[in-house]
Order: sequence, then structure tokens, then C-alpha cells
Amino acid sequence: MTDRRLAGPVRIVGTGLLGTSIALALRARGVDVALADISPSSLALAIDYGAGRAAQPDDTPELIVVCVPPDVVARIAAQELREFPNALVTDVASVKVAPLRELIELGADVSRYIGSHPMAGRERSGAIAARADLFIGRPWVIAGHDGISYGRAAQVEQLALDLGAIPIEMTAEDHDRNVALVSHTPQVISSLLAARLTDATDAATSLAGQGLRDTTRIAASDPELWVQILRANAPEITGILRAYRDDLDRAISTLEAPDVAGARRALAELIAGGNTGVARLPGKHGQAKHFSRLVVLVDDKPGELARLLTEIGELGVNMEDLRLEHSPGAQIGLAEISVLPAVETRLVSELESRGWKISEALA
Amino acid sequence: MTDRRLAGPVRIVGTGLLGTSIALALRARGVDVALADISPSSLALAIDYGAGRAAQPDDTPELIVVCVPPDVVARIAAQELREFPNALVTDVASVKVAPLRELIELGADVSRYIGSHPMAGRERSGAIAARADLFIGRPWVIAGHDGISYGRAAQVEQLALDLGAIPIEMTAEDHDRNVALVSHTPQVISSLLAARLTDATDAATSLAGQGLRDTTRIAASDPELWVQILRANAPEITGILRAYRDDLDRAISTLEAPDVAGARRALAELIAGGNTGVARLPGKHGQAKHFSRLVVLVDDKPGELARLLTEIGELGVNMEDLRLEHSPGAQIGLAEISVLPAVETRLVSELESRGWKISEALA
Repeated sequence: MTDRRLAGPVRIVGTGLLGTSIALALRARGVDVALADISPSSLALAIDYGAGRAAQPDDTPELIVVCVPPDVVARIAAQELREFPNALVTDVASVKVAPLRELIELGADVSRYIGSHPMAGRERSGAIAARADLFIGRPWVIAGHDGISYGRAAQVEQLALDLGAIPIEMTAEDHDRNVALVSHTPQVISSLLAARLTDATDAATSLAGQGLRDTTRIAASDPELWVQILRANAPEITGILRAYRDDLDRAISTLEAPDVAGARRALAELIAGGNTGVARLPGKHGQAKHFSRLVVLVDDKPGELARLLTEIGELGVNMEDLRLEHSPGAQIGLAEISVLPAVETRLVSELESRGWKISEALA
Repeated sequence: MTDRRLAGPVRIVGTGLLGTSIALALRARGVDVALADISPSSLALAIDYGAGRAAQPDDTPELIVVCVPPDVVARIAAQELREFPNALVTDVASVKVAPLRELIELGADVSRYIGSHPMAGRERSGAIAARADLFIGRPWVIAGHDGISYGRAAQVEQLALDLGAIPIEMTAEDHDRNVALVSHTPQVISSLLAARLTDATDAATSLAGQGLRDTTRIAASDPELWVQILRANAPEITGILRAYRDDLDRAISTLEAPDVAGARRALAELIAGGNTGVARLPGKHGQAKHFSRLVVLVDDKPGELARLLTEIGELGVNMEDLRLEHSPGAQIGLAEISVLPAVETRLVSELESRGWKISEALA
């Protein structure tokens, strides 16, 4: 946004996780951001966060980003297209075929609409979970269509670039097929796995390690949002789940007779198949890359963590993120600290010279 | 180890990831560690890493830790029990029923054997991935049985404590049932999911986000090791996978007709079921039920978080867990603090009287 002069504010409709995160990132670049939300308290919270100002009746936005749930995205986008006849409208919903089809059915001016989808999110929702750096290094799909000119699309591409994301162009159909595989099906698989823990004994959950935590992290996602996503992309997801079920059936059959000839090979191929699949994933994207992470061991005594943070402050180092891991019963907590890579070496040596124990293994 | 005088060295048989990590941790405590491995090059590597010295024929270890793959653990443990008639022998394999049964079948002196299982690992294997702090804060199962005296078991418990782990006692049967749920089944589910990516287009994998990376991280695990684990614990795993398949069948049926009455509710319950399950996990993601959580708003200024934690320390309150939500673009950070329920009310009122803003709605 810094390089281009927008005629008016960027208008963000919907101040949930994505809308507020986009707004925060634009505000950090000095862009005038006009916020709108059907919920006055949600809007007020986003404004409190510094995500922008409340939209005014005389605003003349050039760019409108609709950040509302998938079920209502077409209706809201149509309304915005009507209300602001000079603005380009985009949205950030996790499905792209249904909204475009619905907009056409509603007779909306789709020559000013181009759907998009930043591949960024968190298992927590709402303005409260928003982060200006949510999009850094993340793919941002721009789903072009025949009814819009190339120049118009470039404006959304620039938005993605301004927010640190990587714009990727594909059709709405390709998008929906692809996210069914890399996002929607994993959500179902993870939710079903986590659901198996519901009746687990405390003894069992006390043994949970990082593997289980990772495989079930997204199972903490918002049911209301996911009902909409799953319904909107049901045929694509169902196709992949059926293939998954076939593989699962084979795995169960093998495990039912683990001593028969060929069982070892079948199980080895099961795990090796996962090796091959996971190797298809390109190198890590995302914010983690931009920060160095170190883990400091902290005695389980009142005041110890405060002392650590005070000393980090005295060293003039700004923490980008902090997370304390503390297992019940453990004498030691682990403070995961994210800092800019430039200060990492100095921080480690300063902390070690002050007697702190840093674990590189856990970082 | 510091508080007890061992008559001889601790003997570690198998210098892979776990064996070498245990050895490194013991060496760091000044313990004499005698290393043995069937592979001379693996042994030499571990010695190079500082994990100990090569075992000598006249060693008289009091404690032997067998760190070999599950398929051979009973055979090696039996051999060690024979060769060192005064030593206590433990192992660290991921299954506990089969090794004990096999040892009894082999006629080994199980009055000197007690199985154990540190719940720690990495996707990388071998001495090269070993870390002395691998076990810090991790559960370490000690699987007692009727053939061993309480005093003997205490020696393995002390080993776990010395390495910073949390000893948890349970029967071999309970262990295998529990790890089937929290470790072995998630491995199968994750491997099968990752395998679906094998034939994915580059466009699809380019959209992969953190959710997919997390759910498939353990799919990079070693096939050879996992064939042994899955076979050794097949009945327990199969039972859980069958229940999973029933849930998956229901999900597929729902997604095949996403517009019928009740489909929304079924999908909401699918995702909500995952929410409930993941909340059962202690620490990190699901907050343990027995802690109260409060969210304190912290100004995005250097030193503010340290000031908060210092004041909490001054109040004599021990934080059980802490998580900071902080975006470089936001003007407020959120400190999520878990404390014992007994101190919550006092902490809230004391913090509020000191001017901190607490959002209970967010907790």
C-alpha cells in the first residue's frame, strides 16, 4: 500500500480473526482502514486493538475486503458491490466456487469481484486472536474468473504482497479441490482423532506427547465456521475421505492378522507411504521462519519467570512471542521465547552467563 | 545419580536416539556410562559424542538400560540378565506387554527386570539426534509387575527423576492400551493422511499450511521401528481404529448429503467432538481442567509483561502455565495465565487493585 495512492480507505467488513489481522497489518503500513461489523462489540474490540476506525457513511473505499463466514460471504459481497459502485471487492473465505456462483445468481457486478483466500489461520478465532503478521510467508490464493480484468486482479495481488503473503493464482475449482486435500480433509481426520480422546482415562492423556498434540492441534477449531466450510466443499472432501477410508480398511485388516506373511511389508508400506507424502510438502512457510526460538529452563518457583523476563528486558531484547510449557509434576518449566534472529546469539550468551540454562534440543 | 553411589557403571545397550540421550544425560551428572552396541560404528559415534566409554568385559554394572528396537528387546534383556546376575535391567521400548511375556517365556530372571518407557522422541533417529535434555519434563512410564520387588522399581524411578522426567507407574497392559490411544493410533492416522499427498499436484501442496504440517509431522517417522511397534500392539490399536472408522463412515455419509436435515448438526458435532477431545490433553493446547485460567491485558511496551509476572511473584502465586498472545501490530498483548483454582479469586482482585485489566470473558 505504501507505493500506491488509494483514493479512499480500505474497507474491512467483518472484524473476526482474518479481518482484524488484515486491518492490523494495513494500519502498521499507515493505511486508513474503515472497519464494519454486524456486531457492535466485535467492532469496538477491533478498534480497541488498533485495527482501524469505524466506517463512516461518506467513506469512498477503492478496495473492500469481505471477511465474513462462508455462508454469508456472497450476500455481503453483493451488498458491498451495490453500495460502493467504484470499489473492487474481494473476500477471504475458505471456499471459492460457491461464493462466485452465488454472486452471479444474485446478479452482482462480478467485474469488480475477485475471490481470494489467505492460507493462514489459527485454531482460535475472533479479533482477540488477530495478528498483523498472520500472513507473512503464507500462500494467498487469488481465484480469477473470466468476468474480471487482469488489472483488477492485480490490486488484490498487491494487497497480499503488502501483507507479506505469497499470491498464487488458480481457478475457484482448482482452489476448492486443492484445499479439500491440504486443509479440509486434514481437519476432519484430526477432529475424528481428537474425539477418540473424549473418554480417555487421565492415565492415558498424561502420556500424551508432542506427536498427539500436533496431530490434534487443529481439532480445537471453531465448529460453526467449519460446518460452513465442510458443507460448501462437501463433494471434494468426500472423495478424499473415501480413498482414506479404503486405506484405513486395509490397515485394519493387516493389524487384525499381524503375523501372516506380508503383514510386515504392508505395515512398512503404510508408514513409508506417509514418509513419501510428507516429503511432498514444500519447505516451511510462515512466521516461524522470521523469528529465532529458544527454550530456557525455568525452575518451578514463584518469580523465576518474572526474573527471566526482567533480565531479557534489561538486555534490551524485545520478545516477539513467549510460551511457557509446564508439565504438572515437573520441577522445571520451559519458556519458549521468540526473538529476532539478529539478537539470538547475544541473548543466548548473555542469559547463559547469568546462569540460565538454554535447551537447543527443544527449540 | 548424584545422591546414590552405584557399585559400577550404568550399562547402556543400544546407542540409538534414546540410548545415547540417556547416556549423555548420565554423563552430564558425572555417572560412569558403559556403552554397548551391535554396530561398532554406531558405538564409536556415541562415544565421539561424549555419551560414555565402550563397555569392558570386567564391568559390573548395577543398572542396565536396554535401548534396542522392540523386536529384539526381550532377547537382549534376557541375555543381559544372564550375563550380569546382580544387575537390574530395564528397557525403553514403546510396548511393554510383549517384552515381559517373552522374557518369562525365555525363563529370564524377571525379579531383576522392570520395563519402562520414556515418552520422548524425535522424528530423527540415531546417536546423531541424541540430546541430554530429551527427557526433561516428559512422562516416563515404569511398568511394574508382580515378579519384582518395590525396592527394585525405585531404582528405575530414580533414573527417570535424574534425567528430569516424570515417573508414572502403570501395568504393562495399561501402558499398551494407553499408548495405543495417544501414540500408536495417531501414527497410523497421520501416516494414512500424509500418504494421500503422494499424488497431489504441486499447486495443491503449495497451499499447505501449518495445520497440515502439524497433522502429518509424525508421518516422517521410521518405518522399520514402527512396523515392530504396530505389530507388538496390534490388538489395542485395531480396536481404536475400528471405532475411528465407524466415526469416519458417519462423517462421509453426512458429507454425501450435506443439505439434508440434521447434516449441519452432525458436522457441528464432529468438530465439537474434536474440541472436547483435544481439551482433555493436559498443558499446552488443552488447558488441564484442574487449573483456572485468566487473561490479563498487557500494554505492548517493553517491560510490561515482566512487571506483571514480578507482581504475580510478589503475591506468592505460582503460575502453572502461561501463554502470551502478542502481535507486533497490535497495541495490546494478552497473557493467559493458569493458576490453581484456590488462588484465582485473590489473584484477580489483587491484580485489578494494581491496575491490571483482566478479561474473564476471554479465558
